[in-house]
Amino acid sequence: MKHLLSINDLSKAESIAILDTAQELARVSDGPMKKLPTLRGRTIVNLFAEDSTRTRISFEAAAKRLSADVINFSAKGSSISKGESLKDTAQTLQAMGADAVIIRHGASGAAQRLADSKWMSGAVINAGDGTHEHPSQALLDAFTIRKHLAKSGEDLTGIKVVIVGDVLHSRVARSNVLLLAKLGADVTLVAPPTLLPVGVESWPCKISYDFDDALVGADAVMMLRIQLERMSEMFFPNAREYSRYFGLNGDRVKSLKPTALVMHPGPMNRGLEITADAADGARSVIVEQVSNGVSVRMAILYMLLAGAPEGEIIGINREVGAL
Amino acid sequence: MKHLLSINDLSKAESIAILDTAQELARVSDGPMKKLPTLRGRTIVNLFAEDSTRTRISFEAAAKRLSADVINFSAKGSSISKGESLKDTAQTLQAMGADAVIIRHGASGAAQRLADSKWMSGAVINAGDGTHEHPSQALLDAFTIRKHLAKSGEDLTGIKVVIVGDVLHSRVARSNVLLLAKLGADVTLVAPPTLLPVGVESWPCKISYDFDDALVGADAVMMLRIQLERMSEMFFPNAREYSRYFGLNGDRVKSLKPTALVMHPGPMNRGLEITADAADGARSVIVEQVSNGVSVRMAILYMLLAGAPEGEIIGINREVGAL
Amino acid sequence: MKHLLSINDLSKAESIAILDTAQELARVSDGPMKKLPTLRGRTIVNLFAEDSTRTRISFEAAAKRLSADVINFSAKGSSISKGESLKDTAQTLQAMGADAVIIRHGASGAAQRLADSKWMSGAVINAGDGTHEHPSQALLDAFTIRKHLAKSGEDLTGIKVVIVGDVLHSRVARSNVLLLAKLGADVTLVAPPTLLPVGVESWPCKISYDFDDALVGADAVMMLRIQLERMSEMFFPNAREYSRYFGLNGDRVKSLKPTALVMHPGPMNRGLEITADAADGARSVIVEQVSNGVSVRMAILYMLLAGAPEGEIIGINREVGAL
Repeated sequence: MKHLLSINDLSKAESIAILDTAQELARVSDGPMKKLPTLRGRTIVNLFAEDSTRTRISFEAAAKRLSADVINFSAKGSSISKGESLKDTAQTLQAMGADAVIIRHGASGAAQRLADSKWMSGAVINAGDGTHEHPSQALLDAFTIRKHLAKSGEDLTGIKVVIVGDVLHSRVARSNVLLLAKLGADVTLVAPPTLLPVGVESWPCKISYDFDDALVGADAVMMLRIQLERMSEMFFPNAREYSRYFGLNGDRVKSLKPTALVMHPGPMNRGLEITADAADGARSVIVEQVSNGVSVRMAILYMLLAGAPEGEIIGINREVGAL
Repeated sequence: MKHLLSINDLSKAESIAILDTAQELARVSDGPMKKLPTLRGRTIVNLFAEDSTRTRISFEAAAKRLSADVINFSAKGSSISKGESLKDTAQTLQAMGADAVIIRHGASGAAQRLADSKWMSGAVINAGDGTHEHPSQALLDAFTIRKHLAKSGEDLTGIKVVIVGDVLHSRVARSNVLLLAKLGADVTLVAPPTLLPVGVESWPCKISYDFDDALVGADAVMMLRIQLERMSEMFFPNAREYSRYFGLNGDRVKSLKPTALVMHPGPMNRGLEITADAADGARSVIVEQVSNGVSVRMAILYMLLAGAPEGEIIGINREVGAL
Repeated sequence: MKHLLSINDLSKAESIAILDTAQELARVSDGPMKKLPTLRGRTIVNLFAEDSTRTRISFEAAAKRLSADVINFSAKGSSISKGESLKDTAQTLQAMGADAVIIRHGASGAAQRLADSKWMSGAVINAGDGTHEHPSQALLDAFTIRKHLAKSGEDLTGIKVVIVGDVLHSRVARSNVLLLAKLGADVTLVAPPTLLPVGVESWPCKISYDFDDALVGADAVMMLRIQLERMSEMFFPNAREYSRYFGLNGDRVKSLKPTALVMHPGPMNRGLEITADAADGARSVIVEQVSNGVSVRMAILYMLLAGAPEGEIIGINREVGAL
């Protein structure tokens, strides 16, 4: 594993190895000494051409807990805004000694292009490219589901996940469907037809237009963020009408199994795709997803940069012992 | 002490303990080894929803001198601008492992709301909320006055402080009045009536509309920043007319006691609330205030995060000895 | 050497010492342990009043490899934008304990004014001031030329450098002419007459309006970035016409000596001042310039802050040995 560009790049074994490593890193960094020396002297660049404080901070916190140096590069006011090509930016960051570049970009495929550049020898991590993929989000979601509903070292066979909302504009949905299916989960997408992408029929999941029907037997419900501006595109008269059909509220939560999880990648539009009682209720693991995000991103950085063989956890413990 | 939200939260003893700790930290971090290992592995988030480079950098420098990791989170281009609630932001930062959040926000009470959120277990430090409070500024101002005019471990009994200018829009004025009064100082506010808030009569200070009269016997004169746009609101024809009544100039400085201090929280509008000769004269401690700001903020972070009992200075020395 | 404001401040011996130190630092920081402890506990402020991600990141990477703490201060949303004077900003940064301030500013002479302020005792490094100077860029360019065409410890006597493009608006051109001439190189500026500054006749270089003629015998060709908006000011009907006379393309590269270097300070306008084949060809050292930039900036910080006598390389090795 040299880059993390897309869930398709990961084998099932690699995916499970990331989840296992994240679990171990969460354990060892949970004490009074949260910082591991693993990536001391390494330089990690956050190249964010789109706003995403949440993902940027999560990667920054993960890198700093591994003792890496982090350089933030916001595309606003950068050479990119002066017309520099992504390739020249890549060459520049490489030449400055970046060991990894975490890229968020509005164009689908931007991370892939960065990685393909022959000048880029460091690792490239896709932190969201257009409507394409957001693999670290899918990994943290799978981590969260496994933590509650399956065992360490295992996959998600037989677990039923329902993903609801604006699938068309969501890289989170695509990455999640690919990863969850790879891990053996049974995935159903729920959305109005106007919010499903062309070709969704070939995705490894079921499609449903009836939220309540899809919820029967669900182990986890993952709500997607929806933009208010999209109401009219979708022929919904207003947000309330959308919520009635596709929003998660207290009544729908009550219809779930007692063990079912309520999830959201954030930031939430409370009152639109999810009500406050659903977001803050006992079954919500939304805040925990954020916390797991740091552990999973530590695992990604660890596996890409520390050159650890998959799943070799001993290395971590040895370093911690040497502190 | 779990948070620092308002001067009202501090007892007199706690206030003095912060000043004493700051004094000790200034001493030990003044050598060639400016960095203390106290907060190694701790993550401190600067959550700035309003521009304030000066305060942000001061906290960042303080945190880094204590070896903490600092993550800057500017609300511009953040989830907050995508409509995320302050509560969701708090939960997110908490879940990411923030040990402390330093918040600057345009809404009075924002820091309090952040601290009240049941999800936020880390420390919250108010770095300015609307027109409400700016407690670390008041603490650094009191530190500066005490350094020149009183003794370590003591309060400010009998010291006469005059605070001048736009009290209405100033969180600095409010926090200073509360702290200085708590420490026994004799405080007078000087402002045009239009720049005094409703209810100022109940503040623990005197009010005067005559700057020159208030200056008689003053030990310290604290000028507040004034916005040029406010001239017309105040029925002043222009800045010159304002300066004549409420600006600090060389003549007014000359009328002061030889030991009196000239203060300003910065950034200054030279020529409006203070002239260049007053700002740069021998009695000005304006630059020293900035320097003291880093020491006081180190003390605040130290006391909130290192779990030191009030005023226990030995702990610091022990760590320094262990370097 | 206390500040680095202008190439004129450097003696020839100091310039060579910086290049030698950069070479040694590149060597010692090229291993698995890229980080040196030299500037641990020192605070370096990046004060960027103009966008320049490339230069800012280069200095940030250099400072972090020397273990310094870096604080980024973008003038957007800073006190500067609230009308604070550069002098007050300087005093503030100094009071906060900045050991060095790296300044990029739109006004020629801004770095000099910062350094002249009696309140600023830390080092000031000019990272580009208006159309005046950009000394670290000139030093990295000289470093790159020497690495390929001369020897360590030596100057650039007899090496022919051609600098092409918008000399009028380029601080890079001015700094390069001054440094290259100081080091004994033979420099020729090539530009349309409208893009040469008044007084260029007194610069220590030749002037030519014929690019192909100037290229005969050149050892290095340095292309300057050109703004598309300048085409009409220059009476060029379009970019293509400009490129025909003053752009570097494959044919012109082929006419060069086999050992000649193609250089550009970046970011490039591919297709305007340089074609893709010229930029990416075998003679291009453009990416290497970026990499050398980090080493040269490490040397600048090292010499200004670590108090090393000129060219004393032993000090570096001693520290590395102590790791």
